[in-house]
Amino acid sequence: MSSLSRRAGAPHRGVTRYQGHLLPGLTHAPTRSFSLAKTTGNHKERVVILGSGWAGYGFARTLDPAKYERVIISPRSYFVFTPLLASTSVGTLEFRTILEPVRRLPGKIGFYQGWADDIDFDRKTIRVETNAADDSASKTVVPGPSPPTPETTGTGMKTGPPAKTKGDIIDIRYDKLVIACGAYSQTFGIEGVREHAHFLRDIGDARRIRLRVLSLFEMCSYPRGSDTLSDADKRALLHFAIVGGGPTGIEFAAELHDLIHEDLAPMYPELMPLVSITVYDVAPKVLPMFDQALAQYAMDTFARQGISVKTQHHLQRLRLADGELGRRHGALKIKIKELGDDELGAGLVVWSTGLMANPLIAKLAGKELAGPGPNPLSGSPTTRRVLRDARTGGLLIDEHLRACTATTPAPAPNGPPSVLEDVFVIGDCAVMAADPSLPKTAQVASQQATYLAKQLNADAVGQKPFKFRNLGTLAYLGSWKAIHQGRSETLRGWVAWVVWRGAYLTKSMSMRNKILVPVYWFISWLFGRGISRF
Amino acid sequence: MSSLSRRAGAPHRGVTRYQGHLLPGLTHAPTRSFSLAKTTGNHKERVVILGSGWAGYGFARTLDPAKYERVIISPRSYFVFTPLLASTSVGTLEFRTILEPVRRLPGKIGFYQGWADDIDFDRKTIRVETNAADDSASKTVVPGPSPPTPETTGTGMKTGPPAKTKGDIIDIRYDKLVIACGAYSQTFGIEGVREHAHFLRDIGDARRIRLRVLSLFEMCSYPRGSDTLSDADKRALLHFAIVGGGPTGIEFAAELHDLIHEDLAPMYPELMPLVSITVYDVAPKVLPMFDQALAQYAMDTFARQGISVKTQHHLQRLRLADGELGRRHGALKIKIKELGDDELGAGLVVWSTGLMANPLIAKLAGKELAGPGPNPLSGSPTTRRVLRDARTGGLLIDEHLRACTATTPAPAPNGPPSVLEDVFVIGDCAVMAADPSLPKTAQVASQQATYLAKQLNADAVGQKPFKFRNLGTLAYLGSWKAIHQGRSETLRGWVAWVVWRGAYLTKSMSMRNKILVPVYWFISWLFGRGISRF
Repeated sequence: MSSLSRRAGAPHRGVTRYQGHLLPGLTHAPTRSFSLAKTTGNHKERVVILGSGWAGYGFARTLDPAKYERVIISPRSYFVFTPLLASTSVGTLEFRTILEPVRRLPGKIGFYQGWADDIDFDRKTIRVETNAADDSASKTVVPGPSPPTPETTGTGMKTGPPAKTKGDIIDIRYDKLVIACGAYSQTFGIEGVREHAHFLRDIGDARRIRLRVLSLFEMCSYPRGSDTLSDADKRALLHFAIVGGGPTGIEFAAELHDLIHEDLAPMYPELMPLVSITVYDVAPKVLPMFDQALAQYAMDTFARQGISVKTQHHLQRLRLADGELGRRHGALKIKIKELGDDELGAGLVVWSTGLMANPLIAKLAGKELAGPGPNPLSGSPTTRRVLRDARTGGLLIDEHLRACTATTPAPAPNGPPSVLEDVFVIGDCAVMAADPSLPKTAQVASQQATYLAKQLNADAVGQKPFKFRNLGTLAYLGSWKAIHQGRSETLRGWVAWVVWRGAYLTKSMSMRNKILVPVYWFISWLFGRGISRF
Repeated sequence: MSSLSRRAGAPHRGVTRYQGHLLPGLTHAPTRSFSLAKTTGNHKERVVILGSGWAGYGFARTLDPAKYERVIISPRSYFVFTPLLASTSVGTLEFRTILEPVRRLPGKIGFYQGWADDIDFDRKTIRVETNAADDSASKTVVPGPSPPTPETTGTGMKTGPPAKTKGDIIDIRYDKLVIACGAYSQTFGIEGVREHAHFLRDIGDARRIRLRVLSLFEMCSYPRGSDTLSDADKRALLHFAIVGGGPTGIEFAAELHDLIHEDLAPMYPELMPLVSITVYDVAPKVLPMFDQALAQYAMDTFARQGISVKTQHHLQRLRLADGELGRRHGALKIKIKELGDDELGAGLVVWSTGLMANPLIAKLAGKELAGPGPNPLSGSPTTRRVLRDARTGGLLIDEHLRACTATTPAPAPNGPPSVLEDVFVIGDCAVMAADPSLPKTAQVASQQATYLAKQLNADAVGQKPFKFRNLGTLAYLGSWKAIHQGRSETLRGWVAWVVWRGAYLTKSMSMRNKILVPVYWFISWLFGRGISRF
């Protein structure tokens, strides 16, 4: 399939404006689909990538810029090395050491900062709402309540309050499309989570958590005055609650423990008896991807460090505490089903559980495609749609990572293939039809990205199918201890910690950050973590 | 003078609550003033320092914690190494490499984050409005229009819009007080400066400038669409205007030039013809502290780099551009007196000129102190006040950096001394009565801080007077060139640049930053500046 794969006679909106790479004279070719060489003279096929996470950035990094024109569309201008996000949220690492700017990818790279709002698969055009003027782009976006009417731009679904200044709308053409826009955080509709919990998925989240933690200690360190905090207030504010016992939640709890006990304890010794960290999970055990012995080791380590783990606890509501404590100090009240009507106080709630489909994906799945025409046997009209996984809402892909489609009422014998040519879906927004149990992890996204780029580089799409290779899982537990679950072996303690740091160091992307990350590990070890708050 | 220097019989509010260091039995001593040892048993004299800039932080760093209890009160929890602020605003250095957290000062240190709102010199108590819960504390604060009534808390004068959540009010006692709260930015009442200009005095300012510069390039890089920017719009947005031709303004222009030409040009080559940088100053020449030959060298260097310098230009108004360009993209319109009614477009205006007295200082100067009683000769009542410099509004100090006072109508022959014992004023908020022409620079503040701490360490206050020793001035000009004005010698070009970097490196405070600053210089030289925007 080529850039000419579109409905005959469809208007070519934006082609001249956006440097569409059509051959002169072929623009209105009536043929439905045929093959062209990947490069025609100076014109390379334009591969547009939606997203700059593990899937999108990893794909762009591997795709050959000599062979394809690469264009990334993403609401953020950088890739985040997410496994070290918790380390930046407590100041062990500087924020920018885990960021890779998209525009610094080697080779020529196009980048348009914005949200993909809609895709016209027939015209091969993406509608983008720009957000370069929006400084809050680095924050995890949680869909608010659905807008009252099913409207078309999708903007109203991205954030609760509508954006103050809506960005410009631009249309971008593609020859090949890689959808890698990830998943959204899932709050399960629990009251107050979207408004009051902190997420930990983007660098802005890490920054806000860091500001909040340091701010809480500073707030509690004033001398007792007529209108300042009581010990009970301080105890509430210095309770750090983490919801979700997966690796993200566990590692954040561990890093927070290290920050408090190694760096803040000497500065605020009088506050230490008032500090507590709790991890809540609805499941009977945390770290489900680790075997029983490792998970138990993690629990024992946490117990020794004074971190509480409450399994089979269901958060029912989150709200600001009453009066000055909530209004002025941002204290929260947590309602847990198992504890009845008594609410717990907290100064910070970090939400690290659950993913849900991106609103763009939901919109695409409902979209009617240019059909194959009437059923040649029955003569009745047919409809073709992109397929969606019923359980998770992700887009279904075949084993070559192409978007699957279905034609109804009945597929014509010589109808279109069951995949959407030139459209690939990878990472958290994709569900492999052949193996829907693949986890939504950086490892899967990363392997899909590399696989797909290599297939495209070799003009081999559709040949060797994608196979996930489990490289094991790591989790940091605090106090220089970690656990590692390999395919056959397991590690724990400081040996696993060395593996943990080593694995991240070799995976860390640019040479710049490969130098800076160990420099900061060394500096933080020698002089303490970065605690300046701004 | 000791902690007992107060009006006889004055109530000792807060003494027990805030660990006042009075000796039992002496609390109500009627004696007006006498000497006590600096330390009495376990009780050290409490030296409270208002401010954490060059003066306050430098003083706290040098004061002996074995001899005095040190307490810093400041709205920000760190010291900023201001000469490198411009470098962080363009990403050459990471923000935190020029910050020193107050709580990391060696030795025991007390810190209360907040604004000193008022001082009761008679009761030796400072009223503080806490701001630990306020995340915007790292921003330069510019007084808005004066509140309609002369009210007491001063809060209304600190920021234009009143704070959403006012902090708690606490009272802090001192035995000795060092006022080092600096000066505010002066906008000369020019319309729109407070609302639309960026300042460059605190780390949050640098961060906002960096976000804005990168955002402007990103905004201008979208493909042309029906509702996107014209070339004229982009030319306006990519005009960077700096108001003030002192070292701060000149160095920011130079660093911005380096960022654009070394890092952004390869990423946005098509935008380069649209970029311009202009420095405006009302004076006939910029860099007044450098001799004519060096200033001319700076102008020639700027001319070669394409940076315009417009002297004798008066900014009259700053406003948002009309329509979408202003509302959505934040484009500004600058009205310059010399250019008549034609307004210039700009995407960023950096304001780096003018200082004005802190509202606290204004309040202190008007304050009536516990008087010496009736004039013993005439029998008429007297009034005693802290003295203020009429021209700049700073507090007048003697050559030992003590706050000066005046008693009216006529000083009694055996009346109080003409200084306020135990109250010292240093840095930008002080004006030496003996040498009012001393510039408001980091160098003066730093030398005053060290001098005063050493005098206190040696119990030698009032002996050797303070003398400023001019160590020369440096300014970076871009493209690895600088100028240096020494006492007798001058340097320019890359030699001065080496001196510039060297001087900053040896002055840079903590060992942590002495390692990190050159690491970042090296990393930025090797891989380019940090351009990830979040």
